[in-house]
Amino acid sequence: MIYFDNSATTRPFPEVIDVFQKVAHQYFANPSSPHYLGAEAERLLEHTRKKIAEQLKVQPNEVIFTSGGTEGNNLAIKGIALEHQGRGKHMITSQIEHPSVIEAFKGLERLGFEVTYVNVDRYGYVDPEAIEKEIREDTILISTMSVNNELGTIQPIEEIAKMAKRYPKLYLHVDHVQGVGKVPLSLKQIPIDLLTVSGHKIHGLNGTGVLFVRGGIKLFPLFHGGGHENNRRSGTENAAGMVAFGKAMRLIAEKERDHVNELKGIREELISQLDQMNDVVINSPQEGAPHILNISVPGVKPEVMVHALAEKEIFISTKSACSSKQPDVSSVLQACHLAEDVTTSALRISLSYQNDRSEVEPFMTSFKQTVHYLKGKGEK
Amino acid sequence: MIYFDNSATTRPFPEVIDVFQKVAHQYFANPSSPHYLGAEAERLLEHTRKKIAEQLKVQPNEVIFTSGGTEGNNLAIKGIALEHQGRGKHMITSQIEHPSVIEAFKGLERLGFEVTYVNVDRYGYVDPEAIEKEIREDTILISTMSVNNELGTIQPIEEIAKMAKRYPKLYLHVDHVQGVGKVPLSLKQIPIDLLTVSGHKIHGLNGTGVLFVRGGIKLFPLFHGGGHENNRRSGTENAAGMVAFGKAMRLIAEKERDHVNELKGIREELISQLDQMNDVVINSPQEGAPHILNISVPGVKPEVMVHALAEKEIFISTKSACSSKQPDVSSVLQACHLAEDVTTSALRISLSYQNDRSEVEPFMTSFKQTVHYLKGKGEK
Ligand SMILES: Cc1ncc(COP(=O)(O)O)c(C=O)c1O
Ligand SMILES: Cc1ncc(COP(=O)(O)O)c(C=O)c1O
Repeated sequence: MIYFDNSATTRPFPEVIDVFQKVAHQYFANPSSPHYLGAEAERLLEHTRKKIAEQLKVQPNEVIFTSGGTEGNNLAIKGIALEHQGRGKHMITSQIEHPSVIEAFKGLERLGFEVTYVNVDRYGYVDPEAIEKEIREDTILISTMSVNNELGTIQPIEEIAKMAKRYPKLYLHVDHVQGVGKVPLSLKQIPIDLLTVSGHKIHGLNGTGVLFVRGGIKLFPLFHGGGHENNRRSGTENAAGMVAFGKAMRLIAEKERDHVNELKGIREELISQLDQMNDVVINSPQEGAPHILNISVPGVKPEVMVHALAEKEIFISTKSACSSKQPDVSSVLQACHLAEDVTTSALRISLSYQNDRSEVEPFMTSFKQTVHYLKGKGEK
Repeated sequence: MIYFDNSATTRPFPEVIDVFQKVAHQYFANPSSPHYLGAEAERLLEHTRKKIAEQLKVQPNEVIFTSGGTEGNNLAIKGIALEHQGRGKHMITSQIEHPSVIEAFKGLERLGFEVTYVNVDRYGYVDPEAIEKEIREDTILISTMSVNNELGTIQPIEEIAKMAKRYPKLYLHVDHVQGVGKVPLSLKQIPIDLLTVSGHKIHGLNGTGVLFVRGGIKLFPLFHGGGHENNRRSGTENAAGMVAFGKAMRLIAEKERDHVNELKGIREELISQLDQMNDVVINSPQEGAPHILNISVPGVKPEVMVHALAEKEIFISTKSACSSKQPDVSSVLQACHLAEDVTTSALRISLSYQNDRSEVEPFMTSFKQTVHYLKGKGEK
């Protein structure tokens, strides 16, 4: 099996599943319980929070445990909007954000907020100046992703953050779900206010994630209740999930340090071979994230391609899993103003540190064969 | 060890942890991915949803997977409020709801909603007539719990539902977190619109839960995004967590069928022995839920009591774990108009099917000894 669908989800590291199981079994008490079983679970949770904070180079009380990227994005955006609406009800984002960002904004529009969705260029790049032009007196939030999940485009977050910094009443949220462990982003050097991370994209478990919220920033909680997570996200803590998340964060950082060049190498090899195929258009920018490569095979229905490859135990995606329930056209590629035969035939190859360069040859062989077959030029 | 803190959280069934681990390992693909690995994960998820729906006697599309009770309560309450505010902005609840209900309402008050918190009697009972008196033209929601988490009081949900039914524009939400597997509640016979269940209270895993939403009812999602869970709760599905939740639901139903009378027996035995102690006041109603018993030892600080018992490997709580970070007074007992020396010295003993009648004697021995010691009447 060749699993090239890692931007949809990754296979959990065995160590992550192991530690989950151990904590769920041994530290089952409620971290808020007043006896020492509770205190032990709480210590473990706070130790994990501290370790994650160290890795992100932020303070422990700036780390909020969540159930994943969708929650993180919604909490960041709605949390700022509902809490700070007295100051203004306008927000800015881009046209190619993940549905958990775009739809959160659409939801807020129904509640009377106003949102500007800025254009992107042919490769999906957001122009910091285009954002700046839209800033008004009543703008309270800018939200942009670090790495686009369909194209792998790396946004100029540092420039956006420096620009945004000149508007002190404005918060900056970054959806870093696709970037963690692959594309460096320093919370120490870049003035980001809120940053979303998801466990299952870094070989952690589904149902786990973190939202970084810069100290002192107030959020309207999505989950009110017992006041957990510094009053920002109530609910009995998922200690096992969070320890497992911490483990995944540590392991992915090691992988990034030691193996990111190998990942880049696999992607470059794929690009150079795919580039030679007349039937293939490469949609991703050359200098995109090391794990995402978006291509189109105009004239071939992408889901037919995906199924044909799956028969050969090769797994890739049509655009992103999160919006795969809609018809085949990619709204991200549309926003890049690509031709219709390209936007309706896109495929996403997404890698992880569990892939190996030796998978490129068998992938390419099957891929070429499948394209030829589906184009009526060869055997299955 | 005697673990009598099961209303704070329960120890996960070993089978639940096992199945979680298996699914996380074997069905790691994103259920929304277009290839057959995704389809397999989705089938597993939908199979689980169907089984849970059968058990609750509802339709599969009425079952929304959540991260737990706090999310379920917030989604129900805010989801109805934000979606249906055009029809009215008034809601009714009781004074002794869980913080995830009370605080959700307080949050909505900040957004311009109006909430009536009805009184309860000395045992925490809500009077359906008291609720009915508060219903206005602009009332859109009633929210009451089935079983109070501090007292074990079983609310007259059937009467409340029948009364509410006469007001067709009004939704009824029930927080059933403490009731599942211990206090029967039929969604087939009782016209409830939304019902919250939490995994970790029934020996499932933290980070898992279900919100039942009667078909056709629209909710404003807390998590917008890719449209998962019938557009009511987006985010990559936690297949492993949900299968584990389904397992816990099945197992707790078996336990209830076969062992609920034993549970009642343990509680009755505790009541009869504690009732003989002059230093103890019993706060729970005699005919409360089979697993919760609230008592006070006036004059003894509850956390001192909890710690002294924990030294003897006996684990109970001061009021509920979820509000244990506030000072010692129980707002639930205050709402019951109990005397101050009672509301500031409350202890909660909470049982599960993992407890055994043989634990009563050692518990009582240690408990008596500790009370006598702390009252200056005996040895530690
Ligand atoms: C860029 C981006 N943001 C947010 C999400 C949502 O994260 P999750 O699947 O953890 O809800 C995803 C993945 O689906 C993503 O790729
Ligand atoms: C009655 C009640 N409702 C809601 C909750 C919240 O559930 P969870 O801990 O799953 O967030 C609890 C427990 O904390 C509870 O006892």
